[in-house]
Formats: sequence, structure tokens, C-alpha cells
Amino acid sequence: MKVLVIGANGQIGKKIVGLLRASNQHQARAMVRTKEQVELFRHLGVETVYANLEGTVNEIAEAANGCDALVFTAGSGGKTGADKTLLVDLDGAVKAIEAAEKVGIQRFILVSALQAHHRENWNEAIKPYYVAKHYADRILEASALNYTIIRPGGLTNEQGTGRVSAAENLKRGTIPREDVAEVIIASLTEEKTYKRAFDIISGDTPIKEALSLL
Amino acid sequence: MKVLVIGANGQIGKKIVGLLRASNQHQARAMVRTKEQVELFRHLGVETVYANLEGTVNEIAEAANGCDALVFTAGSGGKTGADKTLLVDLDGAVKAIEAAEKVGIQRFILVSALQAHHRENWNEAIKPYYVAKHYADRILEASALNYTIIRPGGLTNEQGTGRVSAAENLKRGTIPREDVAEVIIASLTEEKTYKRAFDIISGDTPIKEALSLL
Repeated sequence: MKVLVIGANGQIGKKIVGLLRASNQHQARAMVRTKEQVELFRHLGVETVYANLEGTVNEIAEAANGCDALVFTAGSGGKTGADKTLLVDLDGAVKAIEAAEKVGIQRFILVSALQAHHRENWNEAIKPYYVAKHYADRILEASALNYTIIRPGGLTNEQGTGRVSAAENLKRGTIPREDVAEVIIASLTEEKTYKRAFDIISGDTPIKEALSLL
Repeated sequence: MKVLVIGANGQIGKKIVGLLRASNQHQARAMVRTKEQVELFRHLGVETVYANLEGTVNEIAEAANGCDALVFTAGSGGKTGADKTLLVDLDGAVKAIEAAEKVGIQRFILVSALQAHHRENWNEAIKPYYVAKHYADRILEASALNYTIIRPGGLTNEQGTGRVSAAENLKRGTIPREDVAEVIIASLTEEKTYKRAFDIISGDTPIKEALSLL
């Protein structure tokens, strides 16, 4: 599969691109939003496209054209305000969904947040972020795409363990970004993740096995 | 019809409550979010309930129970940040939709914003507000409720003229809040507005006639 990684310059995005390049099965196309990032990725030999999530659906559709799957792992980040949360994490995600529909890419993986589907479990400190995630998830679920919504717990920079817990509902926990990236790659072709949404935190089960048991 | 007015203490909300009280056809129930507002409305002889859009769906459902229609005209206002826009204008509106579904209220009128359905026409200065409106509208349209989405142009405090332009797509314009309130009341029972969304600005056609021509 050729996979468009939206948010390729992000912390999880970089790991996904690395894993795709190391894989025999897949190829990466990185989507980034500054000319400097384009240069950087191209220097590393990665197929790279320039498009901004605050731009038009057409711009994203053009960047996605010819790919077989789309991974959305962009986020406005904790340093920006809730205005960017609305524009990137919500509207940007939905534009990517519409772009996928437009160019006929069926497979769509969205990185969300633990328990984004249950308001009562939203982390008070980042509630606006949860609202954005919740509605992006709902729009994707209502689409005709073959989606997977991955809802990780608190993200850490620890080394991945390759072992997770995955289920529709999990209690709070953390997970290394490395493991989230592995879960995304493994989900691409794991049919048990098709048209599904699930929480994921560090656990005892090897990633592939955990996904096959969903 | 008994109509729950969510955002009754807002500038349009107060006018709607006034019109409902003056009508022979309808009754008002005001929903407000502070105890002081409850006192104020009750002093004026208005049936009033206390509920917060940042609370639970159940809390709103309880406030709505027994009504025949729901008008959502709450807004976080220009003075608060985009975090409140997400929590009130988007998530609050959708909680109200879910509350209506929960207690079996079919008729739902949502006040949106001119051209909220077309990203390319969003007012740059208040783009996060448009994102919130856009997604609340989409969730309502995807529901099974008998909705009307009213998208007014720039709101003014001028006296109403009773005359408007109403259509699926209008160019930018303004409209007095008084006229928006009249449009909402007239829409309650105008079948041409059922399951419809339309722009509205000041114009030449009497309100009832404009709605009957939709």
C-alpha cells in the first residue's frame, strides 16, 4: 500500500514514515505544511507533498491522489489555542476525510484520543481537544470509508514495548508513541480493525495479536 | 406548541421568549444557566428551567421534557475564547440534539450563521466560530429530527422590518435580531422549513411569505 501520512512531521508521524520505509509491504508519502519540511523529508529520500490542513479539500485531495490509504496523525499541538484545535484537529481531519472520498481512497486511519466517544470520561484539562476529536470521529464513522479510529492513552516518548491492550473501552493509561505508530502500521491490513474504533494503552499482548483479537 | 428556548437570556433568546408569550399559539419555557437568570425570568412570569450546556445530556433532557419543540440560540459570545466555542456552540448544540432525541421532541430549530455550509465563504475573522456552527449543523442534518437550520447574516440591534430574503445561498448581508426571532417563530409551524437549512438577511419579502416560498 502507498500510504499518505498527514502530519508526517509530528512526533508520531515521523515514526510512521520510518516504519513504512522499513516495510516491504508499504510505501510512504509524507504530507507536510512548510517548504522547509518538504526539503527535509526529500533529503531523506521520502516522497513528500506540500499541503496545508487549513487550505482547501482540493489541495489535500491532490496531495492524496494515487495513494491506497491515508493516516491522519496531525494535531495542532498543546502550544496553540483552541482556535487551531477547531481548524486543524476537527476541520482539518474532516477535510482529509472529504479528500479521501474525492479521490476514491477507501482506507482511512485516524488517530484520536482515549475515550473520545464518552463525554463523561474526557480529560477536563484538555476538554476542547476532546470535543474536536469526538466530532472528527463521528463524521468519519458516518462516512462510507473503510476507517479505523485509534484512541491512544497518554502519549509518552519511552521506547516501545510492542505490547498493548486494545479494546472498545479501557481505563486511563499511557502508551509510547512508538507503539502507537506500530499499531497504525499493523492496522493497515488487519481486517479486524476495519470500520472499528478502539482505545489503546500499553499492555501485555503483542500488537498484532491484540488487533486480531478485537 | 410549548417551546424550550435554549439560550433564553441571549439577545435573540429574549426576543423569542417575548414573541412566544405574545402568541396565542405557543408557550415558552426558558432554559438559562445561572440561578440569577432563573429568578429574573420567573419574576417576569416565564416558565423557566435551569440547565448548563456544559453539563450532561440528561440535564438538558430533563429541562426539555414535556416540550413540543426546541430552539437552540445559545452562543458562547464574542468575548470568550475558542475553547468555549467548542464546548458551547458545538458540543452544547449537539447535546441539545441528543437531549431532544432522548425525550422524543421532534421539532428542532438551530440558529447557525450565513454560509456555514460553505467553507470558502467563512468569515476569516471568526473562522473557529464557523467551524463549530458547521459541525453542529452537520450532526443535526444527519439526525432523524425534524430540523430547521436558520443561518442569519451579520446580526444588528436595529428595529426589525418584518421583511427578509431567505434562500439556500445568499451573499453577505445583515439582519436585525428582531427579524431573526420572528423568522424562528414563523418557522415553528411552516412546513416548508422542515428538514431545511437556509440563509437569511434583510430583504423585501414579508417573513411568512419568504418562508412559504422556500
